[in-house]
Amino acid sequence: MFSLPDVIEPSVSACSKAQSQLMRALGSRVQIGAEISDDYQTDDSGIIGKRPIAVVLAETEQDLQTALRIAAETEVPIVPRAGGSGRTGGAVPAATGIVLATLGMNRPIELDRGEGSLVVAPGARLSEIHSLVESEGWFYPPDPNSAELCCIAGNVAENAAGPRAFKYGSTRDYVLGLDVFLMGGQKLFAGRRTRKGVTGYDIVSLLVGSEGTLGVFGNVTLKLIPKPASILTMLCSFSQMSDAARAVERVVLARFSPRCIEFLDEKTVSVMREHGTSVAEGTQALLLLEFDGSEAECERQAEEVGNLCVAAGAVDVRVALLAEQRKMLWNTRKQMSHAVRKRALHKISEDVVVPRRSLLELIDEVRRLGDIYQIDTLCYGHAGDGNLHVNFLWNTDEELPRVDGAVRDLFHKTIALGGTLSGEHGIGLLKAPFLGLEQSAPLVDLQRRIKDTFDPKGILNPGKIFPSPGRPNTHGSC
Amino acid sequence: MFSLPDVIEPSVSACSKAQSQLMRALGSRVQIGAEISDDYQTDDSGIIGKRPIAVVLAETEQDLQTALRIAAETEVPIVPRAGGSGRTGGAVPAATGIVLATLGMNRPIELDRGEGSLVVAPGARLSEIHSLVESEGWFYPPDPNSAELCCIAGNVAENAAGPRAFKYGSTRDYVLGLDVFLMGGQKLFAGRRTRKGVTGYDIVSLLVGSEGTLGVFGNVTLKLIPKPASILTMLCSFSQMSDAARAVERVVLARFSPRCIEFLDEKTVSVMREHGTSVAEGTQALLLLEFDGSEAECERQAEEVGNLCVAAGAVDVRVALLAEQRKMLWNTRKQMSHAVRKRALHKISEDVVVPRRSLLELIDEVRRLGDIYQIDTLCYGHAGDGNLHVNFLWNTDEELPRVDGAVRDLFHKTIALGGTLSGEHGIGLLKAPFLGLEQSAPLVDLQRRIKDTFDPKGILNPGKIFPSPGRPNTHGSC
Repeated sequence: MFSLPDVIEPSVSACSKAQSQLMRALGSRVQIGAEISDDYQTDDSGIIGKRPIAVVLAETEQDLQTALRIAAETEVPIVPRAGGSGRTGGAVPAATGIVLATLGMNRPIELDRGEGSLVVAPGARLSEIHSLVESEGWFYPPDPNSAELCCIAGNVAENAAGPRAFKYGSTRDYVLGLDVFLMGGQKLFAGRRTRKGVTGYDIVSLLVGSEGTLGVFGNVTLKLIPKPASILTMLCSFSQMSDAARAVERVVLARFSPRCIEFLDEKTVSVMREHGTSVAEGTQALLLLEFDGSEAECERQAEEVGNLCVAAGAVDVRVALLAEQRKMLWNTRKQMSHAVRKRALHKISEDVVVPRRSLLELIDEVRRLGDIYQIDTLCYGHAGDGNLHVNFLWNTDEELPRVDGAVRDLFHKTIALGGTLSGEHGIGLLKAPFLGLEQSAPLVDLQRRIKDTFDPKGILNPGKIFPSPGRPNTHGSC
Repeated sequence: MFSLPDVIEPSVSACSKAQSQLMRALGSRVQIGAEISDDYQTDDSGIIGKRPIAVVLAETEQDLQTALRIAAETEVPIVPRAGGSGRTGGAVPAATGIVLATLGMNRPIELDRGEGSLVVAPGARLSEIHSLVESEGWFYPPDPNSAELCCIAGNVAENAAGPRAFKYGSTRDYVLGLDVFLMGGQKLFAGRRTRKGVTGYDIVSLLVGSEGTLGVFGNVTLKLIPKPASILTMLCSFSQMSDAARAVERVVLARFSPRCIEFLDEKTVSVMREHGTSVAEGTQALLLLEFDGSEAECERQAEEVGNLCVAAGAVDVRVALLAEQRKMLWNTRKQMSHAVRKRALHKISEDVVVPRRSLLELIDEVRRLGDIYQIDTLCYGHAGDGNLHVNFLWNTDEELPRVDGAVRDLFHKTIALGGTLSGEHGIGLLKAPFLGLEQSAPLVDLQRRIKDTFDPKGILNPGKIFPSPGRPNTHGSC
């Protein structure tokens, strides 16, 4: 059973002081009491956090600074929130306090056409960024499934990735510089606006993926790359899971560079069928591959990789020739998380990563855990990176201890295979109890000391990433 | 005139205590007194630092730990040193103390053929890494000119780049994980061995480019990418500097992705001629472009980019068809720094970066500075990234104040153009006095606090990156 971590709660008087100061300073941009939607207590992790004492709907940098100043002065915890589409509870308040929502700060979006860079406000939607830059012949690769909902500030906080990360990397690889607002409200510009630069420590990379625990993000400067001329999408069906895993290994070994290699297991395939995707009979596993570059390059790679998949045992290889077909395939893939949710009342999705050669072993382990713990399981994900989304599904609270056991065993197996707890969702609240499984105590201590440097009172998004003292390696689900 | 920064010097008794402890613990792997080569007082910056009281020629991780423990216990400064080919004095002792040389730790180099990753010891030579991975069909892109001399630990410390960074990025983009030894000797593994991972703060990126001020590096895990099938190199001559700059802008705007776009000015061209490279008459500027990918892709890009260069005013376009021609071109380019050194007794090379559209303005400024200060100047560098190597040459000490003035003005202009002080050499000793030109005082303070987290006594490579208190924005040359 997941329970919120032990964090220091603010006093009642501190809370009411913070409320009145916020209202005085920010007026209608502050909500309190019954005005506050329940949405601010949760995010796409499904965890229900503490009810906020105030929600600041920031519209300007000054609003961010004011909120951070009041939080610091009153010592009331504050949680930054962008699109609210995170999967591990990064935006869920673990302590009673203020939610600082930056969704309203969605302008300007400024494209520097010559330099190939983009300055975006923290609340800019990822899908809007994609449309803008692609219409100008540029490309911003990170593509988490939540692109229609998520905002750049959240992408930066979680170091968001997505299928194209196989070829193009994650958000961190594209952030040149950013404005960050520290506890107390001080504004800093970290990084640079040029393509290259090594002046001082890489504070930008430290901030990217810091899950809202070090600072609150303002404008972000992104590096763009040229938009590929052509894209070609291919769907390969396998009658054996092991054949699909072997195909992934062979594609990597043969050093092809598709931009995505997505794996989908049998149960995921049945979800795809339910959503109208035509998949060959007897398919136990699918690979969804995508190539980009010149048209000739795409065709050459697709042909060679298609042959390689057939040699590995593919029973069917289809190329999505039309943009419409491509779109449908990806829509189905991108809706998978929500479609899977309909199979049961509850699900948890763990985005573990293992060395690519260990993919089949991990998939087998997931099946084994499903059998042992008698839980419905389902896997899909970014096979090219060794990054699986392992889903455990259940309906009743009685099943929870078994789900907990399966999740715990999955993490142990992942680490034993030389893997990592999270490929793109972050640690947040859900995985914090397990941090010590992957990282040594001195490394965790070092990170805590860095956190103290930014936030000595521990009131910026408390309870995230680091396990609560005295509650190591326990875990629950939601 | 460059002078070493004000740093705290150890007491004589602390030094002799450190010497005797080191000798007792490490025996013949410690040099003291006359045994110590003068080389350990300097690096490729030419700065002469303090004479070390001891040089530890580390062969094992245990040696690193012992040296760091003794340094911490006796409070004697310690400076890590890899290949000694740095350009800003990162390995030059600013304080009397210990030099910790990791050049001898050059084994193992372990290629994981399936995963496409490589574990290398800190003293592994970059050229050796290139040969090994390329012979197996993999590719490690960073290629500083010093590849024959530099070691991976130094590349990591400085976030080394090189011409191919235009397409492929810098060292930081390829470090998945590393062993780091902290002051006192504690060993940590930071990062991961998988392709992807977002567990905790990105300590790896913080360490990469930290110039030996946060920790000493042990084994490094590098990400590899598939080796491109073909390479095509092209040399375009321009009779006007402005035409070459315009060509760079057009190539970028047309969204081609050569792996390198190197610019060389008129004086650099004359150095190339002296070294036997045939260059068209009347050439005032050269662009050296390189394409990689499939053979067809290289040819298509070269043809289109060649046409584009001609349209921008190129008077001559040559393609290096033979591997031998390619090698000769690059050898000349890579030897440029040392060849230029022969034009005068002294030189300083500043690796500033500006937005690409401002390249011509910067080049013009360098010429203007040469005229104003009556100093020989020369420019070349990674034009695709907006990263120029601006060389100032002089012969007598009398010229030094003028060199200082030119360097100072160059940095001011770079910052005014929205640029950064260093694209790949780092800040080290040479640029530390100028850090405040680019970075705000609160950002510098934040970095100092992070440094304190790792090294509270300030004895790990002191005097680097951060300006000495009370000596801001003065600068000299060596």
